[in-house]
Amino acid sequence: MVNYSQRLDRTFAALVDPTRRAILGHLERNDSATVGELAQPFAIKLPAVMKHLSVLADAGLITRTKSGRTVTVRLRPRPMREAMAWLTRYERFWSGSLDRLTAYAERKESERRGGR
Amino acid sequence: MVNYSQRLDRTFAALVDPTRRAILGHLERNDSATVGELAQPFAIKLPAVMKHLSVLADAGLITRTKSGRTVTVRLRPRPMREAMAWLTRYERFWSGSLDRLTAYAERKESERRGGR
Repeated sequence: MVNYSQRLDRTFAALVDPTRRAILGHLERNDSATVGELAQPFAIKLPAVMKHLSVLADAGLITRTKSGRTVTVRLRPRPMREAMAWLTRYERFWSGSLDRLTAYAERKESERRGGR
Repeated sequence: MVNYSQRLDRTFAALVDPTRRAILGHLERNDSATVGELAQPFAIKLPAVMKHLSVLADAGLITRTKSGRTVTVRLRPRPMREAMAWLTRYERFWSGSLDRLTAYAERKESERRGGR
């Protein structure tokens, strides 16, 4: 059994690589893709793409279905929910500072108008 | 200059490790902490903690201020905004269930803290 913390480890680790993020991006725009279609935009060899797909599949971020010689890849972004929920905890730091910044800008603006 | 993709690489890489996530969690609950305070809950040696802090500082997620012999660590969660914005693109796949998941993650976290 993989626990909550281990799932976060795997999700964040899968998202570290720009090629893997680009693969997920492609699958977000298209319903599904073959391995060949996914490999096409990258200047890397097919085995390297296969390795990235394995990391994504192990993290539960994609599914692979084999039909004859064709492997169809689909997005399964559910693990990202947990990653996002984890990040949400920190959201108050930048939404809070944004509010303070807005208040500061408004104060400066009214000072500027009233004071001079 | 570090570009958008490289910043995402560093942020996600910094978040892969559960000790680093716990350090960020501690800094989220407390305004600031010394290196000793941050090291205290973990069964790892101080140099290992220092190494984690360097990874977090390189990713721009914390700041370290030295005063005499004391190093004060503060949270700087701004890079998480970009990581969260990246994940937001996938939100439509699970929208609605994110609120429930945040509640779930928070419950798990409080169980984990209370359970020991």
